[in-house]
Amino acid sequence: MPTKSRPAPPAPFEPPARVLLGPGPSDVHPRVREAMAKPLIGHLDPVFVGLMDETQELLRYAFQTENKLTLAVSGTGSAGMETIVVNLIEPGDPMLVCVNGIFGARMVDVAERARAQVTTIERPYGETFDPDEIRRALKAHPAKVVGIVQAETSTGAWQPLEEIAEIVHEAGALLAVDAVTSLAGVPLEVDAWEIDAVYSGTQKCLSCPPGLAPVTLGARAVETLAARKTKVQSWYLDLSMIMRYWGSDRFYHHTAPISMNYALREALALVAKEGLEARHARHALCGQALQAGLAAIGIGLATRAGNRLPQLTCALIPDGVDDLAVRKRLLADWGIEVGGGLGPWKGKVWRIGLMGHGARASNVTLFLSALETCLRDLGVDVPVDASVKAASAVLEQTGQPVSV
Amino acid sequence: MPTKSRPAPPAPFEPPARVLLGPGPSDVHPRVREAMAKPLIGHLDPVFVGLMDETQELLRYAFQTENKLTLAVSGTGSAGMETIVVNLIEPGDPMLVCVNGIFGARMVDVAERARAQVTTIERPYGETFDPDEIRRALKAHPAKVVGIVQAETSTGAWQPLEEIAEIVHEAGALLAVDAVTSLAGVPLEVDAWEIDAVYSGTQKCLSCPPGLAPVTLGARAVETLAARKTKVQSWYLDLSMIMRYWGSDRFYHHTAPISMNYALREALALVAKEGLEARHARHALCGQALQAGLAAIGIGLATRAGNRLPQLTCALIPDGVDDLAVRKRLLADWGIEVGGGLGPWKGKVWRIGLMGHGARASNVTLFLSALETCLRDLGVDVPVDASVKAASAVLEQTGQPVSV
Repeated sequence: MPTKSRPAPPAPFEPPARVLLGPGPSDVHPRVREAMAKPLIGHLDPVFVGLMDETQELLRYAFQTENKLTLAVSGTGSAGMETIVVNLIEPGDPMLVCVNGIFGARMVDVAERARAQVTTIERPYGETFDPDEIRRALKAHPAKVVGIVQAETSTGAWQPLEEIAEIVHEAGALLAVDAVTSLAGVPLEVDAWEIDAVYSGTQKCLSCPPGLAPVTLGARAVETLAARKTKVQSWYLDLSMIMRYWGSDRFYHHTAPISMNYALREALALVAKEGLEARHARHALCGQALQAGLAAIGIGLATRAGNRLPQLTCALIPDGVDDLAVRKRLLADWGIEVGGGLGPWKGKVWRIGLMGHGARASNVTLFLSALETCLRDLGVDVPVDASVKAASAVLEQTGQPVSV
Repeated sequence: MPTKSRPAPPAPFEPPARVLLGPGPSDVHPRVREAMAKPLIGHLDPVFVGLMDETQELLRYAFQTENKLTLAVSGTGSAGMETIVVNLIEPGDPMLVCVNGIFGARMVDVAERARAQVTTIERPYGETFDPDEIRRALKAHPAKVVGIVQAETSTGAWQPLEEIAEIVHEAGALLAVDAVTSLAGVPLEVDAWEIDAVYSGTQKCLSCPPGLAPVTLGARAVETLAARKTKVQSWYLDLSMIMRYWGSDRFYHHTAPISMNYALREALALVAKEGLEARHARHALCGQALQAGLAAIGIGLATRAGNRLPQLTCALIPDGVDDLAVRKRLLADWGIEVGGGLGPWKGKVWRIGLMGHGARASNVTLFLSALETCLRDLGVDVPVDASVKAASAVLEQTGQPVSV
C-alpha cells in the first residue's frame, strides 16, 4: 500500500501560444511535431534500424561529410560537447580551447573534468579568433585537440573556420568544432574544411525539439579513438560502443530515444527538401533584415561587425530601458520569447534568434513591430514603423517570399 | 556552395503497426503521444518552469518519496545509472555492486570508469540476493555505495529491497537502486524502505517514450554530494548544477528536452489518475495471467520461482524451436515485438513485457494466441486455446476488465 498519497491528477498540458525567437529552442515545423506523436516501434526493430541509417545519411548531407561515424547522441547539445571531449581526450592530454563566450568556457570545464591539460586563448564577448592566434598558441603549447565554437550562442559571434584546420593539423592536433547553433543555418563544410570532430544540437537551426546531439568524426579522430589506451570515462557517451549500436552489427548499447529520432529524421528531411544553399540564404536574409530594422530605430548590435551570425542577433538594450520589463511584455502580449544576455552581457543585450522554421519574414516584422510598441510605451522616441520598413526593404530584395 | 549533393528528401515516416511486448520501449498511451506533438515553449518560460515543478511532484508520488532532489535527467535510463554513480563516487571510493544480469554488470563498468574500487557479489541469471550475502560482503569489503537492481531487465528477476537498506546503512554505506523496469510496475517505496538514490527510465512501466531518466536522492545522498572534494567527472550529469536548474533559482545548465518533458508529465499524470495500488495490481494480474497461459502449454519460465516480475516474463524457448523464426513471425504476422535473451540466455528465452499501457488483458490473449499458432505451425504439439483459456481464468478473477 503506497504511503504517500495520490496527488490530484492534472488535466492534459496545454502550452500557451509562443513564437520562439530566442537562442533556442526554435519553433518546430508541424511535420516534425506530427512525427513525435506517431506510435513507437522497438529500438531494434528492422524498420527503426532503417530509420537510423536514413538519419545518418541525411546528417551527412547537413554536415557536408562522408564520415561513416556520423550519428545522433542520445542527449542534448551539451552531451554532444562532452561526447567529443571525453572520446578524444585521455587523462593528461593537452587541449587548447578558444574561449569567447559561455560555450567555449563550458568546453574548458568539460575538458578539465576529463583530466585534459587545458590551455586557453581568449577573446572578449562578440569577437572571434584569427588563425594566427591559434598558430601562436599551438607553438607555445602543443595540443592534442583544439576546441572552437563556430557560432557562440552567448554572443552571436560567427567564427570563420576555413583556415584553421590546416594550422591545427600542421601542429599535429585535431580540430573539434561546436556547431550547436550553426548547423543548417550557416555553411559548415566538414570535409572541405577538414574538421576532425563536430557536435551540434537539434533545437536551433534544425528546428527539432531539444534532446539529441548530432556528431560527426573524421578519419583522424576515429584513429585517435582506436588508439586510446584507457576506457572513455563516460559509459553513456563512449563512441566505441555507440558506433557499434548505430553501425552494421547493431550491438545493443542503450535504448535510443525513439520519438526524438523520428523528429530528427523529419527535421533533416526538411533540410534536404529545402537544400542547404536555400536554407543558408533564408537565414542570411532574415538576419540581415532584422539587423537593418534594429539599426533603423537606433538599436546597436553587440557583436563585432563582420562576425555577426544571421540566425542569432545580439541587440544592445537602449539606455534606460529595463531588460526584463520588455521581455516580459513581449512574452505576455505577443507570445514572443527572446533571450537575455549571459555573463558580462547580462542585462545589456537581447539575443534574438531566427532559426530553422523560425527564420521567416513574418517573424522579423512581428518582432520589430512588437519591439517598437514596447519601446514607445516606455517613452523611447521611436519613429513609427521605421524598423519594419527597413526590414521589409531587405526582405523584398529577392522578389520572393521568405518562408518555408 | 555545398559540395556534397542533396539527397532525395524522404516522405514523412510512417511507422508500421506494432504491439510492443518486449523489455521496452512499451506502447505509449495516446495522451502521452499527443503531448509530444504540442508546440514548444522555451525551457526557461515560466509555464515550462511550472511544468517542471509539477513533474517533480508527480515523480515524488511515483517514487513514494518526499525527496526534494527528484527530477528527470536529460538522457535515457543508462544515463540515469551513470548520473547516480558519478555523483556518489569520487576516485578511489569503494563500491559494492550486486550482479545478477546485464544491468548489474553495466553498473560495474560505469563505476570502474568513475574510478571506484569495485567489489562484486554475483548470482546466476534469474536469481536474486539475500540480505545476509550483502551483510557478509560489506563486512569483508566496506563500501561507500551499494548498487543493486530491483528489476533485472535481462532476467525478469525481482529483487526484494525491504531489508537491505538497514544492512547497508549499518555498514555506513549508501543504497543505490536501479528501478528502470520497476518504477510504476511493482511497489517501490523510496522513503519507507530508506533507499538513498534511485534511477529509472521512462520507456518501461511509465509507458513514455525513452529519453529521460527520473532520479531521486535522499538526505544521506545529498550530504554525500555536498561533501565531495572533487568535481563530478561528467559536466552533463553533474547533479550539483542540474539541481539548480530544476530548483528555485533556475540556473541555466543545459536546454531541457521540452517535448520529452511534456510526455513524462502526461505519463505521470496517468499514474496519478490510476493510482499506484491499482497500477501494481494491473501489472500483477496481467503477469500472472501470462505466466499461467504459458504453463498451460508447457512453456517453462527461466526466472526462479518467487522472484518473477509480473511486468517482464522470461519464457524458456521449447526444445527444437528456433528463437528468431518465432520472433520474426510474431513481428511480421501480428506486429508483436518480444525480446530475445541476453548473455547466457541468448537463444534460450523470450522476454515478454507487459508494461504500463501495454499491461492489458487484450495483449495477454493476443500474444498467447499468436504464440500458440506459431508453435503449432512449427510442429509443436499445443492444445488449441489452452493458454488463452488458462490466462482468461486468471484475468476474470477480479470480475473487472483489466485495461487502462
